[in-house]
Amino acid sequence: MLDWLRHYRRADLPGDVGAGIIVAMMMIPQGMAYALVAGLPPVAGLYASIAPPLLYALFGTSGAQSVGPMAIIALMTASALGPLAVPGSALYGMLAGQLALLSGVVLLACGLLRVGFLANFFSRPVMSGFTLGSSIAIALGQLDTLLGGAPLAPHGPSVLLGAGAIAFLLLARRYGAGLLRRVGLTPGAADIGARLAPMLLVLAAILLVTLLHLDQRGVRVIGAVPSGLPQPALPLADGYWQALGKPALLIGFMNFLIGMSGAQALALKRVDQRHEKLHTNRELVGIGLANVGSALSGGFPVTGSLSRSAVNFAAGARTQLAGVISALLLAGALVLPTGWLAPLPLPVLAATIIVAVLGMLDLGTLRTAWHYDRADALALVATGAGVLLLGVESGVVLGLVLSLGAMIWRESRPHIAVLGRIAGTEHFRNVERYPGETEPRVLLLRVDAGLFFGNLEAVNARVEDELEAHPQARHLVLVLSAVNAIDTSALFGLLELNGTLANRGVTLHLAEVKGPVLDRLRGSALLQALSGRLFLSTANAWDALARDGS
Amino acid sequence: MLDWLRHYRRADLPGDVGAGIIVAMMMIPQGMAYALVAGLPPVAGLYASIAPPLLYALFGTSGAQSVGPMAIIALMTASALGPLAVPGSALYGMLAGQLALLSGVVLLACGLLRVGFLANFFSRPVMSGFTLGSSIAIALGQLDTLLGGAPLAPHGPSVLLGAGAIAFLLLARRYGAGLLRRVGLTPGAADIGARLAPMLLVLAAILLVTLLHLDQRGVRVIGAVPSGLPQPALPLADGYWQALGKPALLIGFMNFLIGMSGAQALALKRVDQRHEKLHTNRELVGIGLANVGSALSGGFPVTGSLSRSAVNFAAGARTQLAGVISALLLAGALVLPTGWLAPLPLPVLAATIIVAVLGMLDLGTLRTAWHYDRADALALVATGAGVLLLGVESGVVLGLVLSLGAMIWRESRPHIAVLGRIAGTEHFRNVERYPGETEPRVLLLRVDAGLFFGNLEAVNARVEDELEAHPQARHLVLVLSAVNAIDTSALFGLLELNGTLANRGVTLHLAEVKGPVLDRLRGSALLQALSGRLFLSTANAWDALARDGS
Repeated sequence: MLDWLRHYRRADLPGDVGAGIIVAMMMIPQGMAYALVAGLPPVAGLYASIAPPLLYALFGTSGAQSVGPMAIIALMTASALGPLAVPGSALYGMLAGQLALLSGVVLLACGLLRVGFLANFFSRPVMSGFTLGSSIAIALGQLDTLLGGAPLAPHGPSVLLGAGAIAFLLLARRYGAGLLRRVGLTPGAADIGARLAPMLLVLAAILLVTLLHLDQRGVRVIGAVPSGLPQPALPLADGYWQALGKPALLIGFMNFLIGMSGAQALALKRVDQRHEKLHTNRELVGIGLANVGSALSGGFPVTGSLSRSAVNFAAGARTQLAGVISALLLAGALVLPTGWLAPLPLPVLAATIIVAVLGMLDLGTLRTAWHYDRADALALVATGAGVLLLGVESGVVLGLVLSLGAMIWRESRPHIAVLGRIAGTEHFRNVERYPGETEPRVLLLRVDAGLFFGNLEAVNARVEDELEAHPQARHLVLVLSAVNAIDTSALFGLLELNGTLANRGVTLHLAEVKGPVLDRLRGSALLQALSGRLFLSTANAWDALARDGS
Repeated sequence: MLDWLRHYRRADLPGDVGAGIIVAMMMIPQGMAYALVAGLPPVAGLYASIAPPLLYALFGTSGAQSVGPMAIIALMTASALGPLAVPGSALYGMLAGQLALLSGVVLLACGLLRVGFLANFFSRPVMSGFTLGSSIAIALGQLDTLLGGAPLAPHGPSVLLGAGAIAFLLLARRYGAGLLRRVGLTPGAADIGARLAPMLLVLAAILLVTLLHLDQRGVRVIGAVPSGLPQPALPLADGYWQALGKPALLIGFMNFLIGMSGAQALALKRVDQRHEKLHTNRELVGIGLANVGSALSGGFPVTGSLSRSAVNFAAGARTQLAGVISALLLAGALVLPTGWLAPLPLPVLAATIIVAVLGMLDLGTLRTAWHYDRADALALVATGAGVLLLGVESGVVLGLVLSLGAMIWRESRPHIAVLGRIAGTEHFRNVERYPGETEPRVLLLRVDAGLFFGNLEAVNARVEDELEAHPQARHLVLVLSAVNAIDTSALFGLLELNGTLANRGVTLHLAEVKGPVLDRLRGSALLQALSGRLFLSTANAWDALARDGS
């Protein structure tokens, strides 16, 4: 805890302060926008940007992680609370805090029980599909706000504002950095400066609404933002614990995946500069406590935002001090009068959301997966479609099932080769790839996969097929050079295979069993029951069996 | 379809007929007993023993499979219907049929969509734990019936009958076959004869109750069993479809696992006699239609019973004709007057259930797993405890999660070795097992597991650790001789690793990439982006890098 503070290097200070200021200026529009996505008043997003980064700074492990509201988690919050309360109501706000508390507790429990390995349950294509589906769902959800009415009955001035905002943000993203470079900024500073376009847009929009009295012409604005810091409190609604349990689990899980992948990406980037190891379980505790902090201060579920964290890092953040500074700046903004925010038009906020989530769209993963492994590509598309059609919660579960399903499917069809001897050598190769000597009485099979419950049936079926194709075989040698593990189910499977083969007069031998696998097998019933022998190498087996006249 | 009939061999006839008769005599007590477990009137169990085996004979693939009521599926039926209707009510019976219909449709859909590979999702230890927990739950559920009242207020005559029945069944199981051998039966016939003890017990108990008028002394009997065949009908209760959906999925899944493992065990036994291949997907269709048949004829969910199938096979069943004959015999018993069954005492039926399910207890798997792989043993115990404490449905889900969780956990900790050269040779071995030459500028790492989303993090972490331990390393060679597959997630992981290492001045090389893995990688971005080279062998890499003065 606070390791970074004890070993703080003065040289890191300017970077941390600069990054803190820049992230605070990103946080103001993002916090309010994602609060809207979550169905909460804009000020909740500002509250959720203060206590969480402070708590993360105390317990988290990544110096560049920016913890606060995030689009997908906001969408999941809305989807969890929608059936329980009316957006904007006091109950809704209370439940948002309760959900943050519960998902924080889930993350904490995972961290303390050291089940960080659960992060390994989601494949990257599925995660990409989940992000894809969620981004589109979020963008679609903002259409009404952007157009100031239903898509078929848009409100003219709102549409103009919204479309103008989108155009400005897209142009800023495309040309902003180049423009800033041309006026003399360094490339790094220009890139960061371009990320402040949303804040600039917000200021310009406020000015425009105020000057043209657009709010009186029907453009909806965010209205009064209560000034002052959030009061520490934990109002809880009894009777909702059970309904919040499952979403809290899913939000905790997603939260962790999003936070981890962000922190990981940054840790990878900076290994060259200072060694920062990611301690998954401590990271879980850090984000968990950030959520508890959000619950205690009028916020909603938060996580580490990859896009903000990347800017934070690029802007010079080297320690958690950057997060502390941005939190203090947001707190400062709330202590000062907040009246200036009231005329901020909602269509402009919707525009910032839409441009932000469309920026998360990553079709590269789909393209790569499509060419590399069709099953992964289909899992990606199915997860994305699942989020859009079934909702974000079912999308998470579907993603889990598809990740594991794709793996089991792949693993359940192991590569198995009949081996032949390369004439005159001690080398044995797949007879389908290389012409090799074979001997009708000896069948050599190499299984290129760990043996476990998922591929037992496939191995049995292949053995069956090969024995049918080689009716003279009296010896079956399983070459286990590529078998890294044999689980309990496969142990039973081999015992049964041994018995079945013995009944038919076929002796089962094992060859090239790896050290760790053999260590395990030594105490088991298999080696005692084995009808044949254990050979160090395939060549040994060949010499003993093929040349033996029996 | 009906392949077995077209190729029927007269030599199989005596065996099939004998087995059919014996299985019918097992079916009568079992069918009625498992109907009680399911919360249904005994006659429902007889109905469920007629149409299902007939339909299975038309569409199923295993000649020895005995399809009908089965203890665990009956327990799952009771657990699914308990919250929806009162056991014994007309609605309950209707919902039992509806559940059979739905789980039949689930099985059919799985078979037609060819997702038989789903059977690979359950590890054997977890299946054993599931059976263990279910058996105990079923036995505990019969205690009241066995004792003729609550455990603390037992009914004397019922207790005597029940305890006597248990003692008889246990003695018959232990000494029955020996006794029959001594009176001149062949060992095979004696073993089969001993399996008829429950039917003998039923007849004796009926006689005893009739002679001693035990039913007038408070011993509960099954009462009138309506005679006549079930009328084909499909009464459906609207408004229950959704509530039955999830249990139908779980029953379908379990049904398939139980049926498959039985058919598989038998197929393994008889490969020496006649080649009978299991077609998983056709087997799914067969059991699925058997369930639809059960729904249409007043039954409840059915499956292939392993214990009955084993007797069926041992008694000589070679084709589906055995099942047809036993179904016809049961139909015959229902057409004849059924009044003789009425005095059958319930405590005796409860005793047959308890002895049957306790016979399914298999502690051998637990013992083996405990010594071989503690994680599998814990998964077994947790699944068993889950069934007992959380119920049978949660038990299935828990079993799935634990099967996959144990696998991911194992896979997420791959064995990774630093390699050294055995001096003077071209062999490279784990430096922890064999003293070998190393070269500070070249780090050789062999990963002994397929690379996929589940172990990406572990591989990255290990690379990190080793680079820290070898600060002079300028070349990292990943030796992929044991890597059977690289999924899309791992492809991205390697690309990122390549970039990260390049930033730090470390070049990434790959060596000994297997044929099928290389085929996949050829079109991918990795080979183009790779900062280092692709070596055929570790020795090549060593020669090029360690001797190179750069």
